[in-house]
Amino acid sequence: MSRVRVQNFSISLDGFGTGEGQSRDAHFGHAGDRLHEWMFATRSWDQGGSSGVDDLFVQQFESGIGAEIMGAGKFGHPGWHEDPDWKGAWGPNPPFHTPVFVLTHHTRPSIEMEGGTTFHFLDASPAEALKTAREAAGDRDIRLGGGATMIREFVVAGLVDHMHVVVVPILLGRGVRLWDGLEGIEKDYRVEATSSSSGVTHVTFTRNGA
Amino acid sequence: MSRVRVQNFSISLDGFGTGEGQSRDAHFGHAGDRLHEWMFATRSWDQGGSSGVDDLFVQQFESGIGAEIMGAGKFGHPGWHEDPDWKGAWGPNPPFHTPVFVLTHHTRPSIEMEGGTTFHFLDASPAEALKTAREAAGDRDIRLGGGATMIREFVVAGLVDHMHVVVVPILLGRGVRLWDGLEGIEKDYRVEATSSSSGVTHVTFTRNGA
Repeated sequence: MSRVRVQNFSISLDGFGTGEGQSRDAHFGHAGDRLHEWMFATRSWDQGGSSGVDDLFVQQFESGIGAEIMGAGKFGHPGWHEDPDWKGAWGPNPPFHTPVFVLTHHTRPSIEMEGGTTFHFLDASPAEALKTAREAAGDRDIRLGGGATMIREFVVAGLVDHMHVVVVPILLGRGVRLWDGLEGIEKDYRVEATSSSSGVTHVTFTRNGA
Repeated sequence: MSRVRVQNFSISLDGFGTGEGQSRDAHFGHAGDRLHEWMFATRSWDQGGSSGVDDLFVQQFESGIGAEIMGAGKFGHPGWHEDPDWKGAWGPNPPFHTPVFVLTHHTRPSIEMEGGTTFHFLDASPAEALKTAREAAGDRDIRLGGGATMIREFVVAGLVDHMHVVVVPILLGRGVRLWDGLEGIEKDYRVEATSSSSGVTHVTFTRNGA
């Protein structure tokens, strides 16, 4: 059975997956690029980058993935659904290269992009969305793309097999927290932490028996 | 000049330094012993324990320390000040072996314990308390004993030179958070993370120039 995975989801030391004040020009609000600089410094992102443990984790982003599910807040800034031409912030060839299911109460027709990415829009529960994504992914895995709110909903629903969270040593102070309402989930997972010389710590949750 | 240090302050992955429901029988509320099991497994705590990186950090608890400052919530459960015989939860020979300054609005006469620990009670600001503790410590360092609320107050006041925080891979969900209101403090510190095979991650903050 294919697995449901979170990969490279970056949070601050105080647990925020995005800052405050998200807008068209500031996808992560006041966090700016700071949650993802560790990723930009890897060889997977940039040929001159580092090929250490950070890079090994980044490689898992695409490996074996057949579909992504993302929250409405990842697809666009607040209010994107009022812009009929909005196609996400990733340009004509988004870095997904699979079907991507966007969870939103404002559905619209699917959008086919270059490079294999097609955005589909679903107004559905986590379990329903996962069923649809599994049909698209075949025997490959499903990536949960975030943001924090949708990841929490899938974890609470017991649908997540593997979760890779990257703790970045900054304190954002405000934004959207990943961990709220997840008391005790460690009982269902093997949790491992691996710190990198870049300063980040990779925390992996592997579901017991998965 | 002596340094002001936080040592071995343990928090959950979601940032709580103590659980909810603190009482005389549950010093850390619903967290129980879970934030400190990593410490009990070290050789410094128990001769049969491990002598790896966790143990090296535990050794720093006493090394070079001349006084501790602790918050009222560490000295006792809510309401301890109504018990004239309360002397802390550590038995006749507490593990401090120096003067300990308890920050409280309910001061009482000093209590001399066995082994070199004397509890003094101060109704004072962080800066005032530190001045008093420095006089007691001579050229040795001051340890800030916690809880989370008092550590935050000292960090905000710019009084902390070194902070060792241990992130334990559990999700408490509720309690007292360490990181609230500390946005951007990483600018004043070198932050390093070291994960241990025990599962915890040691995060150290070293003040720039200290």
